[in-house]
Amino acid sequence: MDVDALAAIVGADGVSTADADLRHYGDDWAHLAPPAPAAIVLPRSVDQVSALVRWAEATGTALVPSGGRTGLSGGALAARGEVVLSLERMRRILAVDAGEGTITVEAGVTTAAVQQAAHAHGLHYPVDFGSRGSSHIGGNIATNAGGIHVLRHGMTRDQVLGLRAVTGGGRVLDCNRGLLKNNTGYDFRHLFAGSEGTLGIIVEATLRLRPPPPPQQVALFALPALQALMPVFAAARDTLALGAFEFLTEPALQHVLARGGRRPFAAAAACYVLAEFDADEPAALRLFEALLARGLVADGVLASSQEQAAELWRLRESITESLAPRRPYKNDIAVRVARVPEFLARAGALFAAEYPDFEVIWFGHIGDGNLHVSVLPPVGMPHPDFVAACARVTARLADLLGEFGGTISAEHGVGLLKKPYLGCSREPAEIELMRGLKRVFDPAGIFNPGKIFD
Amino acid sequence: MDVDALAAIVGADGVSTADADLRHYGDDWAHLAPPAPAAIVLPRSVDQVSALVRWAEATGTALVPSGGRTGLSGGALAARGEVVLSLERMRRILAVDAGEGTITVEAGVTTAAVQQAAHAHGLHYPVDFGSRGSSHIGGNIATNAGGIHVLRHGMTRDQVLGLRAVTGGGRVLDCNRGLLKNNTGYDFRHLFAGSEGTLGIIVEATLRLRPPPPPQQVALFALPALQALMPVFAAARDTLALGAFEFLTEPALQHVLARGGRRPFAAAAACYVLAEFDADEPAALRLFEALLARGLVADGVLASSQEQAAELWRLRESITESLAPRRPYKNDIAVRVARVPEFLARAGALFAAEYPDFEVIWFGHIGDGNLHVSVLPPVGMPHPDFVAACARVTARLADLLGEFGGTISAEHGVGLLKKPYLGCSREPAEIELMRGLKRVFDPAGIFNPGKIFD
Ligand SMILES: Cc1cc2nc3c(=O)[nH]c(=O)nc-3n(C[C@H](O)[C@H](O)[C@H](O)COP(=O)(O)OP(=O)(O)OC[C@H]3O[C@@H](n4cnc5c(N)ncnc54)[C@H](O)[C@@H]3O)c2cc1C
Ligand SMILES: Cc1cc2nc3c(=O)[nH]c(=O)nc-3n(C[C@H](O)[C@H](O)[C@H](O)COP(=O)(O)OP(=O)(O)OC[C@H]3O[C@@H](n4cnc5c(N)ncnc54)[C@H](O)[C@@H]3O)c2cc1C
Repeated sequence: MDVDALAAIVGADGVSTADADLRHYGDDWAHLAPPAPAAIVLPRSVDQVSALVRWAEATGTALVPSGGRTGLSGGALAARGEVVLSLERMRRILAVDAGEGTITVEAGVTTAAVQQAAHAHGLHYPVDFGSRGSSHIGGNIATNAGGIHVLRHGMTRDQVLGLRAVTGGGRVLDCNRGLLKNNTGYDFRHLFAGSEGTLGIIVEATLRLRPPPPPQQVALFALPALQALMPVFAAARDTLALGAFEFLTEPALQHVLARGGRRPFAAAAACYVLAEFDADEPAALRLFEALLARGLVADGVLASSQEQAAELWRLRESITESLAPRRPYKNDIAVRVARVPEFLARAGALFAAEYPDFEVIWFGHIGDGNLHVSVLPPVGMPHPDFVAACARVTARLADLLGEFGGTISAEHGVGLLKKPYLGCSREPAEIELMRGLKRVFDPAGIFNPGKIFD
Repeated sequence: MDVDALAAIVGADGVSTADADLRHYGDDWAHLAPPAPAAIVLPRSVDQVSALVRWAEATGTALVPSGGRTGLSGGALAARGEVVLSLERMRRILAVDAGEGTITVEAGVTTAAVQQAAHAHGLHYPVDFGSRGSSHIGGNIATNAGGIHVLRHGMTRDQVLGLRAVTGGGRVLDCNRGLLKNNTGYDFRHLFAGSEGTLGIIVEATLRLRPPPPPQQVALFALPALQALMPVFAAARDTLALGAFEFLTEPALQHVLARGGRRPFAAAAACYVLAEFDADEPAALRLFEALLARGLVADGVLASSQEQAAELWRLRESITESLAPRRPYKNDIAVRVARVPEFLARAGALFAAEYPDFEVIWFGHIGDGNLHVSVLPPVGMPHPDFVAACARVTARLADLLGEFGGTISAEHGVGLLKKPYLGCSREPAEIELMRGLKRVFDPAGIFNPGKIFD
């Protein structure tokens, strides 16, 4: 690795080959393989990114764009001698226009920093999830991150009014320029959204901010069975102005509670739903009574303070972190909302038959048809054996998703983890077109090669 | 033209070379040049579309996809011996799922038919504009149509949960399958949205339906000057739940009234804004009084019945039709909302200087930063001279848009009309990438060649 050439572009303090840095910057939350990048570069400007791209093309070096590395699919893993290009030093908030309702940031700004800047101007940035403090806007766009408010405001792509990206040849594309309406040919914003670093480096974004939502209330309901989920969702959607609708099963709750906190109800239930909605206590109480009468809920609590609301949210948001030490195998799947009940039954049966000895934890953004299913290895099982077993079952799950017209990646992206199963959600013709499209933007094949597809 | 080969695919009644048909199906609302297609085909199924594409590739024949032909940029014009592929016979509503809130239709279904089907199921399809009765869903997606409710619900692309398209090789792509969340690589839905027929033929779509909006109220305000537009918009946005915010100038009103109807206010004003909002009479009255006190409005009316609301809407919606006999030159431009006031001043000065003898009519979706400016020829001016004069001024307008980071096509698409000015909104590198991308989907170059870019 020609460290001097890199230092000439980003300065000596902007490049590292120190072991600790290679390990730190070379991996993401999926921990799929030992990180082994050749070097880390930390540019400070668009010009430096552009020069790095030209250098990578000239030397045939693969670049792995790196945001907050909270990705769950190995998209930011550099295990094959790549150079990791971290956006960490490009974290300026460039402009907030409160009248227009927009914010322009460098790609390395965290999701939380955008939320806070919006808040400081009396506005609201709706994309939100547990990793908000670490994940970058660039990473959010590159994964088209979802989260807990998709129901009301859509995915990250729906917030992007403009983005700048450095693509093949080091060319800087200025996509859509912050316009609300612009029908001048193919919309490259939407190509970069969800591209997982394979088309270029996102360096800047202009995001749409919203008026702050009206005061929200949070309720948690205990459900007697997973089958009650969708009827409860339908009833809630029809009576409350929902901002979020999340679920978790009792085993998920147990993992969270093992790390502290209080059980929300005296009795355990099959699963729980958390609903956040424009405050309307009478409607929420009427809903609760109607659901109780129909036997769809067993118990319920309406948060009576901000603190209690935060406490209820913690039960849902701590799941991923509480499971992390066990190195779970994560599924992030979705089917059309209308097909969720049937799919839950079929997938439940599949997991019960195929994972008799593994603990299976269900949770997710059920209002979007999105289920997270984390599988925990039996204590003592060697990790490679566990991964092999999971891969075998995931192949069967992929078949089931194919049958249901579902997706193997609802929001976490394909990365390396889901690559073998892409075929259940995208046809061979589509994958072939994706390859062709990547070649147009990245003729030298340097942008995160091997991610999403080969 | 091998009519027999076409008849073998679509049946004898599905192909025509009759003069009247060539003229009818070969042109759109822009009337840019005499239509001169070689033939018209009217397939009835996806298989037939696929076979037509393979035939076109084998014979090197250009296909012009044709929807309702209400397009305003010449996108559906076939002036060079192409075969027009009309979706007119593919107009089945395939499914409505009211629980899920989705509708699946063939591409030839009209916008109005989707609105009506949604309504019949107690739901709402928000994309709406004057051509609703003729324009097709396929054409709406291909142009990423906007309209009067973009403020609340976005453009057509934002309603598309899935689409099927026939692309190069006659391959049928099933894009996104109606899923709310699906992060499995590049999202081809968003490529087809706004592609103006250049990447393939859209044959089916699954659209998102919304709950019906709460009862709406309509107000019309008279403004003393164009400069009052954005302050009035800001005040309205901050006090009412806006569903639409449109404007028109006094000359536009005069053209509408020339075809019937009653002047809304005793005195003429510089311009008028129409606001539609979740009914809240007290808030609307407070807003009116505040604007009156600030000198931003001169008069106002709040519709007191559905009929009166429809009457006010007619003033805005009839503009395009009322001008059509004069064969106006249409501009459909946008800048960021924050830059509208400055841009209005600069563009107004440009038009005043360059078009001293032409009538210039301003109207549009000002809440999105989108201005329609229709230029009328002086009576008696030969049409070619008029077009040449407009082209010259549009080149200067394009420079101004470039300076403002604006767009030469906010919602109507580039087609043929805006192609010479694409460079003011998209950089050469982007246009080059668009060409490369088209080659990936359309290696034979048969899909609407020469539209958007050469
Ligand atoms: C506790 C926890 C909860 C989570 N909850 C959710 C959730 O609810 N919803 C959800 O969608 N995700 C969730 N995630 C996953 C993750 O936070 C998101 O995928 C996030 O968008 C990743 O952002 P990042 O900056 O960390 O990206 P990284 O992990 O650094 O990178 C992700 C991908 O994007 C690419 N990339 C990063 N930056 C750029 C750039 N500037 N230009 C081009 N490519 C780039 C990388 O190469 C990689 O392929 C969660 C993760 C954790 C740990
Ligand atoms: C009175 C009036 C008011 C209007 N108001 C608005 C408005 O407010 N907002 C707005 O955005 N537009 C407006 N328009 C413009 C027009 O209605 C829209 O562009 C509309 O989406 C065009 O749909 P269409 O079916 O008529 O398409 P066409 O005119 O038939 O075609 C438009 C383009 O799409 C392509 N195409 C059509 N069908 C397909 C298909 N199935 N697959 C692939 N490509 C296809 C064509 O090749 C062409 O390039 C208005 C037009 C009129 C006449």
